[in-house]
Amino acid sequence: MKVVVTGAAGFLGSRVADALLRKQPPSLLNVTELILTDIHQPPSRNDNRVKVLALDLTQPSAAEQLIDKDCDVIFHLAAVVSGQAEAEFDFGMKANLEATRLLLETARRKAPRAKFVFASTVGVFGGDLPPVVDDLTAVMPQTSYGTAKAMSELLINDYSRRGYVDGRIVRLPTVSVRAGVANAAVTSFASGIVREPLNGQESICPVKKEQELWLASPASVVHNIVYAATLEGSVLGKWRAVNLPGLRVSVREMLEALRKEAGDKVASLVRFEYNETIARMVASFPVIFDNSRALKLGFAVDSDFAQVIRSYIKDDLKKN
Amino acid sequence: MKVVVTGAAGFLGSRVADALLRKQPPSLLNVTELILTDIHQPPSRNDNRVKVLALDLTQPSAAEQLIDKDCDVIFHLAAVVSGQAEAEFDFGMKANLEATRLLLETARRKAPRAKFVFASTVGVFGGDLPPVVDDLTAVMPQTSYGTAKAMSELLINDYSRRGYVDGRIVRLPTVSVRAGVANAAVTSFASGIVREPLNGQESICPVKKEQELWLASPASVVHNIVYAATLEGSVLGKWRAVNLPGLRVSVREMLEALRKEAGDKVASLVRFEYNETIARMVASFPVIFDNSRALKLGFAVDSDFAQVIRSYIKDDLKKN
Repeated sequence: MKVVVTGAAGFLGSRVADALLRKQPPSLLNVTELILTDIHQPPSRNDNRVKVLALDLTQPSAAEQLIDKDCDVIFHLAAVVSGQAEAEFDFGMKANLEATRLLLETARRKAPRAKFVFASTVGVFGGDLPPVVDDLTAVMPQTSYGTAKAMSELLINDYSRRGYVDGRIVRLPTVSVRAGVANAAVTSFASGIVREPLNGQESICPVKKEQELWLASPASVVHNIVYAATLEGSVLGKWRAVNLPGLRVSVREMLEALRKEAGDKVASLVRFEYNETIARMVASFPVIFDNSRALKLGFAVDSDFAQVIRSYIKDDLKKN
Repeated sequence: MKVVVTGAAGFLGSRVADALLRKQPPSLLNVTELILTDIHQPPSRNDNRVKVLALDLTQPSAAEQLIDKDCDVIFHLAAVVSGQAEAEFDFGMKANLEATRLLLETARRKAPRAKFVFASTVGVFGGDLPPVVDDLTAVMPQTSYGTAKAMSELLINDYSRRGYVDGRIVRLPTVSVRAGVANAAVTSFASGIVREPLNGQESICPVKKEQELWLASPASVVHNIVYAATLEGSVLGKWRAVNLPGLRVSVREMLEALRKEAGDKVASLVRFEYNETIARMVASFPVIFDNSRALKLGFAVDSDFAQVIRSYIKDDLKKN
């Protein structure tokens, strides 16, 4: 099948590409052609199924170049992250809402049977939340990032209902531990406070130790994004959005796990410097989820945060 | 204060204008200047506070002509109704989402303190609904009309959070009994099955007698739209949308009330002709609401459907 990945130079996008091309264990999808795109051209790969393209998805012509009638699956992962979308409202709306709309319109016209997998976020939730959040909890985003994602979700659901695309929306927990460098997501510290100390560097935590997060490892999130494309649209019913499974962990628990896995010296590299703006946005995200629908649909979940740290140490630490 | 009403030639828009200009009992707002706009020029009024304007709000220049820095309140009531938005997806999105966005952008730039009152709909709800719907129930629209309204709601909430406008969103129940002629709303029959018989005409009901509706009279809806502009933004908290109070009534109960108020001969003018498409969309709208938040905020509610019919007979029947 022919597959498109947007945001393919990004942290998750490049890992989704890896997972799609993987032979051992075999990819969940039988990919014969893979178009990888991002604002800067993604690194080329030693695989003749792959084509790489530099595209600005906010330009109407971009989707046109990306999607053709043979397209079977579109993984739309490109986004402006939360911190930047909050600081640059107009650009965030353009990249996170309008670009999605342009892709949907092109898919509708050229490849209406394509599966359209959209990376959304639990940041669509906020405000007055019930004690436990599930897939039918009202979204009430308290960030412009969450707003654009929630608007895109509604659009994808309606396009799916009308048969314009076959959409599925995965709401990502905070991803930790991300390899590489910090990004402008307001939850970036949730990787930084593990990654930087393990790399011998100091890390600043802008929220209190008591702050809890809803987390998933890169491995489980990447697996779940690809897995979403294997489902029949009908099993999702009238609402194409699924909250991906995750772990509820406090900053304190994250640091304790780090201390246990890597020692006192490493864990002591985390310095607390409270940032009101970031802390408020992070505190608006829910942390207790009922993921029974996702689990019933077959999405995967991490075992615990210590295991997540060990995976980072094993798979990513030496690569930096 | 300077007030703008979009959709001012429409059924609700023209009544909102009347309510704003009324001296006895006095209008809830002290209006010194009233700009009435619609795609066709609204009828002029014998009141020197009023200016009428024909504008196509999907054109970027329209909002520019409508909103200036002195603008205190914008009632955004213009919309393509549900049946038409379902039949003409692109036009519906343009009129129901993009036009809202253009107005918000102009208000943000020129009059960020303006109160922005948006007429939304209980049609934002649908899908797997809880037994009772309240202001924090997830929206899962099963129409493109509901989708565009729900997307606009998210945008208005974020604009309000950011201080770009002072938004308030009222989700309207089905309005019955509307005076005048049938429109393309899928719930249009909910007025027609009372109005047409009272005018001696046959009316076709496209849904079954058991179908229930969530209704409010024009009078209470108009009152509540204007009332929304009197509230302080802060009392709405983190979510600017309010489900307006209404009555839960079945088609059978509506016809019984009609029979009681106007006799057998009148009630027998309703003919049942099932329409699968309309019936499915109507059945996706919820009918049991917990309106305690709206009532606590001071929004009004009708007493019963018989009273609603009597009001129509008294206020509107003779005008046709």
